[in-house]
Order: sequence, then C-alpha cells, then structure tokens
Amino acid sequence: MNNREAALKIPYGTRDFLPAEAADKRRVESAIAAAFAAWGYDEVVTPTIEYIDNLTKGSEVVLEPHMFKLFDRDNRTLALRHEMTTPIARLAASRFKEAGLPLRLSYVSDVFRYEQAQTGRQCEFFQAGVELMGSDNAAADAEIIALAVKAIEAAGLDDFTVCLGQVDYVRAVLRELGLDDEGRRLVEQAMEKHDLVGLEKLARRLNLSKSAAEIIRELPVLHGGSELLARAEALTDSEDAQAAVYNLRSIRALLADYGVADRVVFDLGVIRDFGYYTGMVFEAYAPGLGFPLAGGGRYDNLLAEFGRPCPATGFALGIDRLMLAKERQGQGAVWVARDVYVAYGPGKISEAIRRTMELRAAGKTVLTALSSETRAQAEAEAKSQQAAELIYIG
Amino acid sequence: MNNREAALKIPYGTRDFLPAEAADKRRVESAIAAAFAAWGYDEVVTPTIEYIDNLTKGSEVVLEPHMFKLFDRDNRTLALRHEMTTPIARLAASRFKEAGLPLRLSYVSDVFRYEQAQTGRQCEFFQAGVELMGSDNAAADAEIIALAVKAIEAAGLDDFTVCLGQVDYVRAVLRELGLDDEGRRLVEQAMEKHDLVGLEKLARRLNLSKSAAEIIRELPVLHGGSELLARAEALTDSEDAQAAVYNLRSIRALLADYGVADRVVFDLGVIRDFGYYTGMVFEAYAPGLGFPLAGGGRYDNLLAEFGRPCPATGFALGIDRLMLAKERQGQGAVWVARDVYVAYGPGKISEAIRRTMELRAAGKTVLTALSSETRAQAEAEAKSQQAAELIYIG
Repeated sequence: MNNREAALKIPYGTRDFLPAEAADKRRVESAIAAAFAAWGYDEVVTPTIEYIDNLTKGSEVVLEPHMFKLFDRDNRTLALRHEMTTPIARLAASRFKEAGLPLRLSYVSDVFRYEQAQTGRQCEFFQAGVELMGSDNAAADAEIIALAVKAIEAAGLDDFTVCLGQVDYVRAVLRELGLDDEGRRLVEQAMEKHDLVGLEKLARRLNLSKSAAEIIRELPVLHGGSELLARAEALTDSEDAQAAVYNLRSIRALLADYGVADRVVFDLGVIRDFGYYTGMVFEAYAPGLGFPLAGGGRYDNLLAEFGRPCPATGFALGIDRLMLAKERQGQGAVWVARDVYVAYGPGKISEAIRRTMELRAAGKTVLTALSSETRAQAEAEAKSQQAAELIYIG
Repeated sequence: MNNREAALKIPYGTRDFLPAEAADKRRVESAIAAAFAAWGYDEVVTPTIEYIDNLTKGSEVVLEPHMFKLFDRDNRTLALRHEMTTPIARLAASRFKEAGLPLRLSYVSDVFRYEQAQTGRQCEFFQAGVELMGSDNAAADAEIIALAVKAIEAAGLDDFTVCLGQVDYVRAVLRELGLDDEGRRLVEQAMEKHDLVGLEKLARRLNLSKSAAEIIRELPVLHGGSELLARAEALTDSEDAQAAVYNLRSIRALLADYGVADRVVFDLGVIRDFGYYTGMVFEAYAPGLGFPLAGGGRYDNLLAEFGRPCPATGFALGIDRLMLAKERQGQGAVWVARDVYVAYGPGKISEAIRRTMELRAAGKTVLTALSSETRAQAEAEAKSQQAAELIYIG
C-alpha cells in the first residue's frame, strides 16, 4: 500500500455515509426523535468520552476489551461510550437529581465497540433510545416496548417482530436447579449466543441431573405466543419465576391496549449482552437479518451504582441496522434529485443569483452555476448535477 | 472527592446538554441542514476516528498536541477528528473520485480539540458546515459566504457580522516586505491572536525597516467597508496582493446580489487557525462574544494532498456558539411543555392507553401515568410533569 492509498483509508470498523445514506440516516433519526418527543421523552446529549469506571459500572460482563480507550492529561483512563444507558444513569443521578420521577429521557447518538466488523456490526455505530426511570410497574415496561414498536414503524420499516423475555425467570429457574453465580453466568452466556452445543457441554460439566439438563436445553427454545407462558410456568416451582411469568402476562395485556401485541412473541431465550438487566428484556428482529434491530429491558439496580437507587427500563434502536433492514425490504435510501439548476450566459450572474434566491425562498432546492455557460453546457451540467429543471438566463 | 462524587464527573472540556438545550440543538441543526439542502449541498457522515496522518495533512500548524489520540490494534495512531474539512477532502479523493465537479458536500457533526475549556470553547463541540470543491471562481466564494449568512439566520440568530479577509493579500505583502516563511508564519500567528504587542516585538526582532514595521502594524487593523480596499491597494505594489483585493471586490459585488452584503465587513487581519487556507477567509461574529460563530475560506491545495488536485472553499458553523449567541440575544433555548397528561383511576389503564394513542395519532405530545392515581394526585403530577392539560379517566 503506497502513501496515497493509505491516505484514503479509514480505521477498521468505521464507515463513510454517502449522500443517499446520510439523507436516509437524517430522515430515520428525525422520525424516531419525533416519536420519542410525542411520547413525552426529553432528548439529552452526553459527552462522547467518559471515565471508563463510569461506563463499566453495574455490568457483570467484562467490557474493557471492547472499548476504545484513551487517556486524559492526568493519565486517567477514558473511553468512547459503548452505549447510552450508563451515561443516562449518571445524568439521572447528577443533573436530574432534583427532578421528579418518573423521568423520561431520550437520545440519538453514536457509540463505539471493538468487535469483529461485519454487515450490521461496525465499531462505530448509531443508536436512538429512551430510558424511563422511577417505576417498576409493568405499565412502564409496556410503554417502553410499545414506543420501540412505534419508533421502528416511524423509521419506515414494515416487517419486524419483538421477542420478549424475562431474565428474572431464567435466573430463578437456574437458581432452583442449584447453579451458583458462576454456573448461571456460563449458562446465560451460552444462551445469549444461542450456543446449544455449549449448553449441552455445560450441563455435563456442571453435573446437572437429567431433568435439570432437560430444562436448560428447553429454556433457550421457549419461543412462541401466550401458550408459551403456561409451559414456562409448568417448568418451575420457583415463586420468583412464577412472578416473572405473571409480569410478562401483564405486559402482554397492556401491549394489546397499545395496539402492538401482534408485533410481539415471547422468547425466554432472550438474555441481552449487558449484565445490568433485572426483569423483562426484549429484542426486535427483521426477517433475514441475524442480529437485533433494537434491544432493551428493565435494569432496576444500575442507578444505585451512581447513588440514586431507582427502578428503570429502556431500549436502544440500531440506526444502521434499521437502515439495512429497510434496504433489504426495498424501502432503502433513495436519492432525491434537486429541483432546479440555474445557469447563465456572460454578464448574467447577478440576475441568476437573484432568481436563485427567489426560487429558494419559494422552497425549491436550487443549484447555481459557478461560471457562465452556453445553453448546451448548462443542459449537460443540469443532467450531471441531477437537477429536475434547468433555468437558463441568456 | 469520594467515589460517589467521582462517579458523577465527566471529562475535562465536555458537557451534558439538558432537555431545553438538547431540543434547541436539534432545532438549530435541523434548520441549518435544511438550508444546506436547499442550496444543493449533500450531507455526508464520516467516522469520528481517523488516522492521525490523514487529519494533519495539508496543515502548516502543529495540530497533534490538540488532538485526542488513541491506538488501533496494530498500534497505529488514530485521533478523534478535530474538524471536518480534512475528512471531506479525503472523501472527495476516494468515494467521490468519479463524481463530477463541482461537488457540494455538507455535514453536521461533533469534533474534538484539547484546549483550555471556557465559555464557547469545549474540547468536544459541534459543527455544521459545507465544502464546495471544483471551482476557483469568486462565485464559489460568494456562494459559500452567502450560505453561511443564510444558515446562521435559519438557526435563529439575528445580530451578527461576517468579517472577510484574504490570506493571499497578507502573504503577498509579507513576501514583498522580504519576510521568509518562518518570519511570515510568526507574523501570521501574532495577527491571528490579535497580539499587537507581539507584532511590535516581531518587527524589531525581524529587523524590519520603519515603513515595513508600519505596514505590519496596520495589517491587523485593516477593518471596514469597501473604502478599506482602496487603502489595502495603496499599501502594496505586489501584483498578487492587488489580485487578492480584486478577488474581494468581486466577492463583495456578488454578495450584494445575494442580498447579504450588509452583513459583511472587510477585515484583512482575519487569518484563521488552520494552515491550509489559500485565498479569501471569513469569520462571523455576534456582538459581545469574543470568538467566531463560524469560519471558513478557500483552500486550493488540500485536496492534492489526498491525490485529487482541485480548488475548494467552505466553512464551519459552531453549533454550541450559535446557541450561546442566541441565548445572549434573548432567543435561547425554551422549554416546550407537553400537551396532555393522561391519568386514570383503578382498573382504567386500558382505556387510558387507548385514549393516549388517539391523542398522539392527532399530533399531541402525551404523557401517560404509570399507575392509577386519584384526581388530586393526577393534578399534582400533571403540574410536576409540565403538561398543559390533564385528562383523568375515573
């Protein structure tokens, strides 16, 4: 690679958005922000860089290897934010300390994770999301899920499904089976990766009874409509697990009131990749895309890490993934042509500029020539600049 | 500072935007993006992180100490972008290599610089700007300046002035006075800082003649209307300097056609802080703010650094600074109340949700209670959540 080629490279896992994509990104983000606002969620903007200790608070999972780290002038470790829930928890405990609850906040921002880059998974990517703090009611969870559905619809995607799980259910069942924290984490990790072979191995390694191994095999595939909840109840005697199922039933009833129940299926194999979830969790999927478009859930312990104990629930949408899903469903970025190209002969530039400004004042998208042209040149240029109409001032 | 306080801190020079500010930021950015689009500028999005070698290309100034640096997995040095002109030059030479000229691109993004943080100068801040590539005509410069004026107006700021300079004029005069590159750079740096005492000292140190020292003293205060250009011509015999003044006259005439000439004064002391400018340069100021709201100029050599020689001109607006200027002029962020708070008595949640969704479908901003409330509780809550209207379903 010579110097010139090197000069045109961008870092691993990053990308440039060209005009059609950038325009679609702006449309998608604006539509989602408008949906969040209509539901009473206030947008906030937090720094791209935070102290790494703050970003990793409340997580059971080792996040640091996936973070872009840097150092401040006092040699303290900073990182580019890898998600927005933790920064908003920090904000709720500081700048919103005196604010009444419930607190509804939203964001549209870029986040950064070192990952194997692939379609739908870049190291820098874009998220829009909300956090609802101050209520542990199913009503809060249902509001969040319904808003996720409405925001995805507002972004212009037609075909998608929300998979709804409950980490309390899974944890209670695993506790009932006698797994310690370490064993539980291993099982959860395998579930999160849908690694059924790994789960088999774990069942043997953890020396589980035959019936316990059966249950661990069944958990990740508990997927379906309301009938699934009866099966989930039958699998366990744990009161916590029963309460978790009851929570899902309550949420389901409210989602029907919101008119979005058709979008939702139960999937008790949904675990999510951050360690801070404590109740319902969900992911949205579009057919043919192997990664979630959106994900979220309840995280009742995170705010206590910042000194303001408070139940909370929320979600994040992946903007890049939504755009990709729209493209796959034939609703992708479309180039919008300019309305008018204003060109002019020698000595006519002043007139051309005045005409241009009138057209813009009338709401038109207008390009103006930067030097005088013949009519033939102007016609070619109008075409090359993709303008729908040519105005030539000769 | 205990752990809890530390947990609430954010890095030096960064900030959180609370709802009223974040809403104003969204309004300002959307209005500017719409102005850019109406003038035929296509938005692009580039990575937050770039190779540092690419970001520092074409600059005479030592930028690295002001950059947030980090390292990729192969230990190559990356940095958070400190501005957007260089990334867009990279883009023009790579992804837009085959695109016809002129090329009009725009962006709205955050940029990062290590600086002494103060009002209007954060280490992470937000810029919106355009680049017009492929023309060295005064028409291109005039389009850029006129668009800067219209974009600032669209952002909602009334009172501001554009100061227009020409680095070719200053360079030609300094060459004529016999300064070498090093001397010229020192004088330009002092001019850029408006350091008149430093200029005096430099004049002595560089052993300039009395008349040359006079000229160096006068350059930074060449500020005024069209009459100023006659004085600028009288100061020099250099043909390059005369050509630079002629360029300013041409731009001025076109700005009158755009209807924005009243906004513009000449200021030959405007130099700008990046080393890549080669012709007209400008800055926009609001009364009482000691830093520019916007700045830009012509940079005809930068694209060659990326292998695509091509004249270019452009500008960047400081979003944070625009917001600050609006606030100082009494047009700052305003809190927008929610339209309706929907509350309900026991057993009425389904009805409340359905009512909420009807109101939202009708374009209202609606908050819904998360549990049943008495009417008195609902009234208090509607007030606390700043809703204009309460609907209580009892």
